[in-house]
Amino acid sequence: MRTEIRFAGFGGQGIITSAVIFGKAAALYDNKYVVQTQVYGPEARGGAATGAVIIDEVEILYPKVVDPDIYVIMSQDGFDKYGTKTKPDAIMVLDSGLVHDRPNCTYYEVPASRVAKEDLGRVIVANIIMLGALVAATGVIGREALKEGILTSVPKGTEELNMKAMIQGFELIQKI
Amino acid sequence: MRTEIRFAGFGGQGIITSAVIFGKAAALYDNKYVVQTQVYGPEARGGAATGAVIIDEVEILYPKVVDPDIYVIMSQDGFDKYGTKTKPDAIMVLDSGLVHDRPNCTYYEVPASRVAKEDLGRVIVANIIMLGALVAATGVIGREALKEGILTSVPKGTEELNMKAMIQGFELIQKI
Repeated sequence: MRTEIRFAGFGGQGIITSAVIFGKAAALYDNKYVVQTQVYGPEARGGAATGAVIIDEVEILYPKVVDPDIYVIMSQDGFDKYGTKTKPDAIMVLDSGLVHDRPNCTYYEVPASRVAKEDLGRVIVANIIMLGALVAATGVIGREALKEGILTSVPKGTEELNMKAMIQGFELIQKI
Repeated sequence: MRTEIRFAGFGGQGIITSAVIFGKAAALYDNKYVVQTQVYGPEARGGAATGAVIIDEVEILYPKVVDPDIYVIMSQDGFDKYGTKTKPDAIMVLDSGLVHDRPNCTYYEVPASRVAKEDLGRVIVANIIMLGALVAATGVIGREALKEGILTSVPKGTEELNMKAMIQGFELIQKI
């Protein structure tokens, strides 16, 4: 089944990195066909960042995101741009400290940036917390696949920090 | 004018990273509309890696690569898969130590992996040498834009190494 996932936030949060890691995890470690896209326009210079991943069991013939099934939103601007017209059965994982509105679909509030900063000491891994939360909330790929995708992508020496962030993401969903 | 760029190599060379950095450089620092795509299929598990970037002055309506104008090829497998049907006026930058065949279009031989290993002591920056060579050979984006794209993407502490790699890429083309 085709699943479309939209990532949005602001520049510097690692939005595109998280989309790339997620696409890699799904393709290489969860046996899926994947198209992973960034569309940049002049508006990107305003600080918005977005990426998308399409996952399927069969080859993907249409590579554009039509109507996402899943959203990972890390800024109010990202919500305003992508999160206001969700289909009712979509699922959104949002950074509850940075996104003030709430969607009309099912959503999970994850204080990723706060936890990254206060509990892990590095706000930069908020995107990895969000990936953990995404997988825990939706099961769209396996946890082991996500782990492999992260471990084979992050800079050497940061593996432990990123694993802690991923597990925080799992746990923040389990607490809900 | 629409310009399509295909990146291909094997897993671990940072092919997708280089496509992401290049797309970011073009969009954020060279004022272009950009679509940056990875398509992963089961074949990706065989070790092939590919990414694509489409650049235009106007919004990009068709996000699929049709017939690349520019190729950055870092493995013989990548050449076999993407490099054998180039249009005559395409330009290919190839890692001359890893790609044994030569295309029917204009091409530049860049010993990126050898120089990365022997001169810079880190084979991992071969992809950044290739980006420098790509920009020097084609002028498709500005050198300053590439520099900004790299500096805002690479892990903290590796900026100097990556700048050396980019400059090596510029110089390897100037020597040809």
